[in-house]
Amino acid sequence: MSTAERVGVSLEKELLTVFDKLIAEDGYTNRSEAVRDLIRERLSRKQLSNPSAHAVAGVFLIYDHHETKLPQKLVDIQHNHLLEVIASTHVHLDHHNCLEVIILKGKVKEIEKLGNNIASLKGVKLSRMNMMAVDA
Amino acid sequence: MSTAERVGVSLEKELLTVFDKLIAEDGYTNRSEAVRDLIRERLSRKQLSNPSAHAVAGVFLIYDHHETKLPQKLVDIQHNHLLEVIASTHVHLDHHNCLEVIILKGKVKEIEKLGNNIASLKGVKLSRMNMMAVDA
Amino acid sequence: MSTAERVGVSLEKELLTVFDKLIAEDGYTNRSEAVRDLIRERLSRKQLSNPSAHAVAGVFLIYDHHETKLPQKLVDIQHNHLLEVIASTHVHLDHHNCLEVIILKGKVKEIEKLGNNIASLKGVKLSRMNMMAVDA
Amino acid sequence: MSTAERVGVSLEKELLTVFDKLIAEDGYTNRSEAVRDLIRERLSRKQLSNPSAHAVAGVFLIYDHHETKLPQKLVDIQHNHLLEVIASTHVHLDHHNCLEVIILKGKVKEIEKLGNNIASLKGVKLSRMNMMAVDA
Repeated sequence: MSTAERVGVSLEKELLTVFDKLIAEDGYTNRSEAVRDLIRERLSRKQLSNPSAHAVAGVFLIYDHHETKLPQKLVDIQHNHLLEVIASTHVHLDHHNCLEVIILKGKVKEIEKLGNNIASLKGVKLSRMNMMAVDA
Repeated sequence: MSTAERVGVSLEKELLTVFDKLIAEDGYTNRSEAVRDLIRERLSRKQLSNPSAHAVAGVFLIYDHHETKLPQKLVDIQHNHLLEVIASTHVHLDHHNCLEVIILKGKVKEIEKLGNNIASLKGVKLSRMNMMAVDA
Repeated sequence: MSTAERVGVSLEKELLTVFDKLIAEDGYTNRSEAVRDLIRERLSRKQLSNPSAHAVAGVFLIYDHHETKLPQKLVDIQHNHLLEVIASTHVHLDHHNCLEVIILKGKVKEIEKLGNNIASLKGVKLSRMNMMAVDA
Repeated sequence: MSTAERVGVSLEKELLTVFDKLIAEDGYTNRSEAVRDLIRERLSRKQLSNPSAHAVAGVFLIYDHHETKLPQKLVDIQHNHLLEVIASTHVHLDHHNCLEVIILKGKVKEIEKLGNNIASLKGVKLSRMNMMAVDA
C-alpha cells in the first residue's frame, strides 16, 4: 500500500450499526477495508464507462463441445487477438457441456466487441463477461 | 439525521485523490455524504436479496396505447393490488408510445411478481423495474 | 403494430418446455410476445451504450424532507433543465422519508450526468435510475 | 443438440430489421441461434433467483500480492471448500497486482457467501462474480 491518509466520515448511528453487521457477515475485520472496497468498486465502474479505458476481463462461456469446430474457433480467436488474451481455463462440466474462462486485457470497447463475438459462436449456450478497469 | 458518529477510515493517498475528483464531478460537497451514499447503496442491495424484505419500486413501461384495452388493464392491475400501488404517472411520448411509471410498495417477491406480470401484457414494449428497500 | 413478419426459430425441445413454463408464470399468453420482449430489451440495452442516443429515464429518489432546502433544490433542477424533465411524482413514505420519481428525456450522457447530480444532493439517501432508448 | 422443434414468431418488420443488424454485428450467422441465446440467458437469470439452484461461477479478483499471506489465504479457502472450487487461474498484471479467477460450483447461496468472503480479504482490491445456472 502507498502512503495512507486518515479521513473522518460522519455516519448516523443506526446506519453504522447495520453496516458493521453486514461487513462482519461478509468477513471484513475492519471498517476501513470495507469502505475502501466500496470506493474502489465505485471508481472502477466509473472508469469502465469510458470506452477507451484499459481493463482486464473474464469471458465465461458454457458451450457444447460436440458442436463441430467450436474448440478450434476458440483457439483461433485467441491467436487472432494475441495482445488481448492473457490466459484461458477449460473445465469439463458434463458429457455435453464445457466451461471456458478467457482472460482478456485491452480497451473497454475492444473487449466488449470480442466478448460479443465469442458469445455469438454456434454451440456457445451461455456467456457472461466481467470487466475491471486497470492502469494502462 | 439521527445522532451521528465520526468514523476514521484510512485510504491510500492515490485512491483518495481519484475519489475526491469523482465525487466533485458528481456534485458532492463533502466526502462524508459520498461515503454514506455508497454505504446506503450497499445495504439496500443486501436487503433486496431477501424476498420478504419491504421495498418501494418503480415500474417504468413504454407501451402502445393503440393496442386495445391496455390502459384499462393497467387500471385493473392497480385496483387489484390496492395495497401495493401508491401512484402512477402517465406521459405521452409520441403518437404511438406512452410511458407509465407505477410506484409500488410491498414485499420484494410480490413486487417482482407484479412487475413481471405487467411487463408481459400485450402492447407493453419495454419495461424496467427499480426497487429500494425500506423499513416496514 | 406495423406490418408483421413471421420468422421461424428452431429450438431444442427441452429448452422450449422450460421457456413455455417460465413465460406462462410471467403471464404471457403467447410465445411471440415473449420473444419480442426479449428482442426489444436486447436492442434497448445496445442503444443505451451510445452516449448520444435518445432516451427516457426515471430517477427514483428517497430523501429526507427535513433536510433544509432539498425540495427547493429539486424544483430548481427541474426548472434548470426544462427540456429534460417531463414530469415528477412525489410520495410521502413516512415522517422522514419522501420518494420522488423524476421522468427525464434527453441524450444518454446528459441524463446520466443529471442523474448523478441529483443523487449527490444532501439529504438524498438512495437513488436509482432507469433508462430506455427511444426514437429521437 | 437434442431434438429440435420449429417455432413461428411474428415480429414487426422494423423490429426485425434492427435486430438482424445487431446480431450481424455481434457475429451471429442465423437468427435462431441469436434468439436461442436470448432465451437461455433469460432462463439462466430466472434460475439464479432460486438460492438452492445449482450453478457454476467465476470469481475475478485483483489483489496486491505484497499484502502478507493473501495467496496462502486463497489456497486455504480453496482447500476448505473442495467441492466448490473447480479450478483457478493466476495472472501477474504488474509489479503490485495479480488477477485470480476462481471457478466454483455449488448452490447459488453458497457460492454467493464464498464470493463475499473472498472479496472481503485484506489485499483484495476489486472483485466481480459471474454465475450461470447448470443442471444438478
